[in-house]
Amino acid sequence: MFGVMKQDRLQRLLQGMEAVEMPQMLVSDPASLYYLTGQWFSPGERMLALYVSLEREPLLFLNELFPLQEELGVEVVRFDDTQDAVVKVAERVRKNCLMGVDKNWLARFLLRLMELGGGNRFVNGSAVLDRLRMCKDQEEISLMRAASRVNDRAMKHLIELIPQELSEKAMARQLLDIYEGLGAQGFSFTPIVAYGAHAVDPHHKTGTGTVRTGDCVLFDVGCKKDSYCADMTRTVFYRQVTPLGCKVYETVLEANRRALDAVKPGVRFCDIDAAARQVIEAAGYGANFTHRTGHSIGLETHDFGDVSAVNTESVQPGMIFSIEPGIYLPGQLGVRIEDLVLVTDDGCEVLNAYPKELTIVE
Amino acid sequence: MFGVMKQDRLQRLLQGMEAVEMPQMLVSDPASLYYLTGQWFSPGERMLALYVSLEREPLLFLNELFPLQEELGVEVVRFDDTQDAVVKVAERVRKNCLMGVDKNWLARFLLRLMELGGGNRFVNGSAVLDRLRMCKDQEEISLMRAASRVNDRAMKHLIELIPQELSEKAMARQLLDIYEGLGAQGFSFTPIVAYGAHAVDPHHKTGTGTVRTGDCVLFDVGCKKDSYCADMTRTVFYRQVTPLGCKVYETVLEANRRALDAVKPGVRFCDIDAAARQVIEAAGYGANFTHRTGHSIGLETHDFGDVSAVNTESVQPGMIFSIEPGIYLPGQLGVRIEDLVLVTDDGCEVLNAYPKELTIVE
Repeated sequence: MFGVMKQDRLQRLLQGMEAVEMPQMLVSDPASLYYLTGQWFSPGERMLALYVSLEREPLLFLNELFPLQEELGVEVVRFDDTQDAVVKVAERVRKNCLMGVDKNWLARFLLRLMELGGGNRFVNGSAVLDRLRMCKDQEEISLMRAASRVNDRAMKHLIELIPQELSEKAMARQLLDIYEGLGAQGFSFTPIVAYGAHAVDPHHKTGTGTVRTGDCVLFDVGCKKDSYCADMTRTVFYRQVTPLGCKVYETVLEANRRALDAVKPGVRFCDIDAAARQVIEAAGYGANFTHRTGHSIGLETHDFGDVSAVNTESVQPGMIFSIEPGIYLPGQLGVRIEDLVLVTDDGCEVLNAYPKELTIVE
Repeated sequence: MFGVMKQDRLQRLLQGMEAVEMPQMLVSDPASLYYLTGQWFSPGERMLALYVSLEREPLLFLNELFPLQEELGVEVVRFDDTQDAVVKVAERVRKNCLMGVDKNWLARFLLRLMELGGGNRFVNGSAVLDRLRMCKDQEEISLMRAASRVNDRAMKHLIELIPQELSEKAMARQLLDIYEGLGAQGFSFTPIVAYGAHAVDPHHKTGTGTVRTGDCVLFDVGCKKDSYCADMTRTVFYRQVTPLGCKVYETVLEANRRALDAVKPGVRFCDIDAAARQVIEAAGYGANFTHRTGHSIGLETHDFGDVSAVNTESVQPGMIFSIEPGIYLPGQLGVRIEDLVLVTDDGCEVLNAYPKELTIVE
């Protein structure tokens, strides 16, 4: 879509590096590279890094196997499979100087760069870039809205399919067709389709079971559209619901709403988590809400930063994260209701519009 | 399937570590962990490592989120998400001593372990384990044979589907059902289904195109069965073939056969590569055989070690790798014929039995 260096993002990265006194860094994470260059690379086992420095122009170290879609506007240092790529890096970076590397850079590259003296001290420099990526710019906000709109429409299709009584696995496959039909590029994560007691496992692996009367039906699904991720959960009931099911559902829905109401600039992530958790605890299900309330999302389904009891940072305009409280009663049912939310200047915008009222599918 | 420490493999690892004077190492690669423990872990972003030492008993560092299927027979050091997992490691390893780590260990763990002094020097220690994994034991050989048998049968189904004129993408989806029906657990890699000129790209991304009369049809596919990987390529022609298509096909087939004939203990990988390459060069297509002849395979589709011009090591009994010469004529057609081969005491056993004669599908 883009294809040239995003100069505004690069400038913000340089400011962030200056603030933490990190004069140079190697960016290797594919999502971060896309964020800065507008191009996705899938280097597999091969080395790939963008060198960013306060004192020099950026350099892209790229195996000749990978074509560039267009002129990036940065110098590209090429190498092939017969060459030691890290030697190329060491030749061009500042040697007597601190070097930041991505948190997920592989040991074989990092150890080799240390051996070659490509820097005199090495640190995990990801936080600077990860924090930038937490606050979306206008272009990103538009793309995130568009991805969630597709997800809303896909949810409608999925829920309409329930009476066909397909297996969990077959539903997940249908979803791929639905997403593609709606112009998305596929899943942003492996979808969770869980019937009845399977919904108790927040990471349930979609199986061959089929839906039965009285089951809760949990869909935790997301598409990737134009490189940005959607993520939403809805839980409905098939043909009937017990009083317990109603109580659990209404509690989770209230927790979801309270947390959304709490979102505005300056509020701490842990306070948003507490807003959801208090509702569930007050209803006596505190021990059954077994996970954090949410996570940041953008180019990756799990971006840096979560909505949890231990995150005391404050939210800022442009951040996008999930609000997904749940209650899980082993052997019985699980309910989770998840929306994505964008922090605005004075509150928030919920990116998902699919209804959340208790629904019994006939 | 297994579920307890593989003591014989552990002993061989210790011997290998002794030989390279690496007194301790951290194994974090999921396939290597499976190789040693018989259990697959999917740690995602969380730290997970098996500590192996010449002087101490092994230790498994495992987040409490991950259940153990059964008693592994090693001490397990548990931690949770609120704890710094690498501190746990640093507390238990030998500090004034060289430490080997996996080639793909993440920088954030490695840098933290360095900071904590969990070792006095750090090296990429993967080669020891990767070399062990190259030579399969009897249990692994049985599993590799079984995976390739499934792949042979799946290839038959796929080729029979060609006259339905499904899109490349639809064929790939059918294949998943075929594998599951045959008892495999899914793909060992994203299958390549390429019609006509699409076959020219050895990493073609399966698209929406459909097959046309005269097209070559290339299937490069593999399943995973009981954790072991299959990988095979066949190329057939739809309804008719040109004299050029015949010539290219027969050349690739001859290259495949010559390379297979060359495989026996003591022969160098580069000589096997040359056996295939010479046939293709002699036919005038040297520049159109754009990749190495093959790669090792086992728990991963691309295990360590390749059949290429630069690999001067000799093959040994128990090694399993692919032989996959190809000729790619841009804008016209691509032909690749790939089998897996097991090195035996006096030659080799080809693990794929699906026919390779020039086939025109009506």
